[in-house]
Amino acid sequence: MNPLGPLFEPKSVALVGASHSETRLGGVVLKNLLRFKGKVYPINPKYDELMGIKAYREVSDIPEPVDLALILRPAPEVPDILREFRGRARFVIVMSSGFAEVGETALQEEVRRIGKESGFRTVGPNCMGLYNPHKALDTFFLPQERIRRPKRGNVAIVSQSGAILSCLLGAVRDANAGVSKAIGYGNAVDVAEADLYEYLAYDKKTDVVISYIESVDDGRKFIARAKELTDKKPLLILKAGKGSSGQAAAFSHTGRLAGRYEVFHSIVSQFGIREAADFDELMDATKALSYQRPSKGNKVCIITNGGGSGVLAADECMRQGLDVVGISGETKARLQHLFPHFFVVNNPVDLTAQVQDEDYVTVLRELADDYDGFLLISLPNVFGITEKLGELLTAAKKNLNKPVTANIAQSGITGKITSMLERALIPVYPSPERAVRGLKALLTGNAPAPCKRGVQNLPLTPPW
Amino acid sequence: MNPLGPLFEPKSVALVGASHSETRLGGVVLKNLLRFKGKVYPINPKYDELMGIKAYREVSDIPEPVDLALILRPAPEVPDILREFRGRARFVIVMSSGFAEVGETALQEEVRRIGKESGFRTVGPNCMGLYNPHKALDTFFLPQERIRRPKRGNVAIVSQSGAILSCLLGAVRDANAGVSKAIGYGNAVDVAEADLYEYLAYDKKTDVVISYIESVDDGRKFIARAKELTDKKPLLILKAGKGSSGQAAAFSHTGRLAGRYEVFHSIVSQFGIREAADFDELMDATKALSYQRPSKGNKVCIITNGGGSGVLAADECMRQGLDVVGISGETKARLQHLFPHFFVVNNPVDLTAQVQDEDYVTVLRELADDYDGFLLISLPNVFGITEKLGELLTAAKKNLNKPVTANIAQSGITGKITSMLERALIPVYPSPERAVRGLKALLTGNAPAPCKRGVQNLPLTPPW
Repeated sequence: MNPLGPLFEPKSVALVGASHSETRLGGVVLKNLLRFKGKVYPINPKYDELMGIKAYREVSDIPEPVDLALILRPAPEVPDILREFRGRARFVIVMSSGFAEVGETALQEEVRRIGKESGFRTVGPNCMGLYNPHKALDTFFLPQERIRRPKRGNVAIVSQSGAILSCLLGAVRDANAGVSKAIGYGNAVDVAEADLYEYLAYDKKTDVVISYIESVDDGRKFIARAKELTDKKPLLILKAGKGSSGQAAAFSHTGRLAGRYEVFHSIVSQFGIREAADFDELMDATKALSYQRPSKGNKVCIITNGGGSGVLAADECMRQGLDVVGISGETKARLQHLFPHFFVVNNPVDLTAQVQDEDYVTVLRELADDYDGFLLISLPNVFGITEKLGELLTAAKKNLNKPVTANIAQSGITGKITSMLERALIPVYPSPERAVRGLKALLTGNAPAPCKRGVQNLPLTPPW
Repeated sequence: MNPLGPLFEPKSVALVGASHSETRLGGVVLKNLLRFKGKVYPINPKYDELMGIKAYREVSDIPEPVDLALILRPAPEVPDILREFRGRARFVIVMSSGFAEVGETALQEEVRRIGKESGFRTVGPNCMGLYNPHKALDTFFLPQERIRRPKRGNVAIVSQSGAILSCLLGAVRDANAGVSKAIGYGNAVDVAEADLYEYLAYDKKTDVVISYIESVDDGRKFIARAKELTDKKPLLILKAGKGSSGQAAAFSHTGRLAGRYEVFHSIVSQFGIREAADFDELMDATKALSYQRPSKGNKVCIITNGGGSGVLAADECMRQGLDVVGISGETKARLQHLFPHFFVVNNPVDLTAQVQDEDYVTVLRELADDYDGFLLISLPNVFGITEKLGELLTAAKKNLNKPVTANIAQSGITGKITSMLERALIPVYPSPERAVRGLKALLTGNAPAPCKRGVQNLPLTPPW
């Protein structure tokens, strides 16, 4: 078993700071733990029972060593609690805040030292803990009614910030995707992003890893593990603290790569590790990589029934380094023969307002071998597009073993078509450009994926 | 009255190609016209009555000259129909397609010539027509059940493409904004973007104009009118056909600026005319400018209860040229005195997970004079944030006569808080970065607003 195995799949969990009340963080966590199938040991010096299960007065009262201990008590109490877990826990998550992020660096160093001396691995302090829906394990101090958890899925979330972790949980739900593991590691005195990458590289439930980073302590280890993970499955990094304002805002670990963003960025891109420019770009890529496996190539075919949307998509393809290469002469003649003369058989293929549902399938069938990926744009505000489009594309997708993303414009039937396409694992985006970014995440080309968006392919100085 | 007045506010409308059936485009348009308060003259050689109103066999049967005639008949019939409107219409919209966009340039030239000779102004051909909710006028051939129209509001939409026009209608609805006028002008043989800018500059119902452009015929006129409009109210341009793929995809008018995007871009930015990089950026800016008036300055204060979200916002501020300047010493001391010691009284102000609703208002009150704009970030997954936040910020907004945008992270109460804030005209965005882009649209700084996003403020060559 991977060294971090018992952290994500413990058989027993102790909670120091358990409470009987759901209005307290220790009560929220305990309530979330009640769903866990393994053993749960709530610890509270005043109670023998909490929320209907046996409680323990002291750590030493627990009848067995636990795989995972959670600490949710004020920072000054944490060192003593940690010492009690010596020989009694394999992993300890210190969720409490009040350490280096508020200047209490000595206290944080003590936490680090006690963990090292005591033989358990420490997560945190100042962190959100973890969520493993495959084991019904949820240590977050966020009430379920405030943050509904994503379903089980293949996206792993690794976040230094608890706030961003909670935003990512919501965004994964919105993307109609699911989570394999989610962890907020906070101040990272011991377990940090690199250890988590190593674990997730071999985690069979995880197909894509998203990682929010403010600072990195051990740059060499970070790069080695990020590269190792990237070789096995996509890792998408969102690095915060890019400019002086952001850096000042980010809590600054002292570490080798914690300085200038430009250095971080250039090293990361040199190793072919993907970086997202912002939260939305991160989630657009995550959605695509959660639905489909990436593949090589960069030749893209755009199929649309709205000319303007096709143009916007083609523009974004250019920015993303995707090649909207024309349709070859013979295939073009064949398609023109199949379609009315006013359909534009170029790339983008414009099926116009006279489109019928079946036309999308015809193009996909005829061009399947000629392109590496497909972008479907549908404006279902014309009579020829019906809910049947969802069924037809679901069937077509099965024969098309290539990346495909979609933009379905707003209309009365958009929701239904979107649901069907997403059940068929075609990710749907609200704009042509975002659908292109999703497709880009799936097409690795021959070069590393770009980590910046926007204008880099345009001349930077206007040709004045 | 402005020369284009009767186009947008006609007293009478004729429709050539009216149909009794809602499954035909001529029936969809007629149905939409039934809500119009002025006179409607449906024309169809086979009927004396259509959808319950009197119909006319021929154009010459209409008892009076009309302000606006709509033509929805096959392209080859259009010239003869146009000739019949000589002296019988002030404006004619040729909605039919089948002209230059499919190579029928001679037919299109004929349309242009007949219009000029006949003394009416021509819109189109190959266009969507117009929508003026303030007059219940809707000439779109899109069924209401497929595209629900936005409510009345202050956003004018000017789109060369009908497809993008329909997407923009949906996006304006999504933004909880409303439309003053919307028009798709298509192949633009006569009335083009520049004429529309001139009209909208003086339209009292319009506070912000969004314009989707594929090509421009008369560059000099375009720039003059765009500048004139920009001097009166914000104009946001989305130029499609930026790269070779996009240009090939865009139907190409022959015109002075229809060529290289770089030339278009550099001229436009030289004149301080705003450009959006993509559909989403266009709508983020539109939402902000629909809710609030832009003002000078670029000093921004970020108020958050999630550290990570504050860092992402600060990063985006840097990219957008907004200054996240620190809090001055005296004010800082005052705020620190008002708050618990673990609140981070910097910029961003981090109210942490221990936040209470009132804390946002305290910061706004204390810092109101020191900044040009405010970004509110709230993660309502902690106990201290309740629905009351909406009320408190609604009240605070009234005393704060400065741009303010918000990012409310997903939670069980996000919808309610968002509704309240947007009723108070604080635009809410789904990510910190997009909220920054909204704020940027409201802060004109001392330089023209940027038209590109992303990395332009970062060094382009890594400091290797």
